[in-house]
Amino acid sequence: MPNQTRSIESSFAALSDPTRLAVIARLCAGPATVSDLARPFDMALPSFTQHLGVLEKAGLITSRRKGRARHVSLNSEALRAAEDWLAHARREWEARFDRFEAHLARTQQENEDD
Amino acid sequence: MPNQTRSIESSFAALSDPTRLAVIARLCAGPATVSDLARPFDMALPSFTQHLGVLEKAGLITSRRKGRARHVSLNSEALRAAEDWLAHARREWEARFDRFEAHLARTQQENEDD
Repeated sequence: MPNQTRSIESSFAALSDPTRLAVIARLCAGPATVSDLARPFDMALPSFTQHLGVLEKAGLITSRRKGRARHVSLNSEALRAAEDWLAHARREWEARFDRFEAHLARTQQENEDD
Repeated sequence: MPNQTRSIESSFAALSDPTRLAVIARLCAGPATVSDLARPFDMALPSFTQHLGVLEKAGLITSRRKGRARHVSLNSEALRAAEDWLAHARREWEARFDRFEAHLARTQQENEDD
């Protein structure tokens, strides 16, 4: 299994909330200001910026101030790291399952040969 | 973005803990009993089975009793669903980034042509 599970855990924790998932989904269409991101949510701005803080701390988004607005972008590398962890785990499991099926087929063949 | 974010959130929440990530990593090597899974952890069994409960509720593992032991398996479909969500988000972002780069290149070319 891949190492560096610590940041992977914080990525998964950041993704475990509907508001934060919706923010990620929105940012896939391109960078946005904090006000634009907050608009669809019936939520006080401090609560919303807390969610952004969780995403930024986990490395899933980056933000920077331009003039009076704060602009937020997706960090696709962090998405890819989480995706890779899952893909690696799944492939390892599937390879093990394939070996198990091959073993079963061999055993059955041997039984039929007896 | 993919629908059905509810179960994706619970998958991410289930993956946001080091013990539970380690259990998933261990199960990639094949099914195991609860006692086998618990052995490496310095944790009371009730706390450990609570972690298994979170993974099972999120659909990442399945368990069934055989004789006196409970056997736990990975559910790779749930891993794949979480992986697909991330892959879809990342690809959408990358496609948008490619379009943006193509637009920049075109604009630069037009400026040079003027």
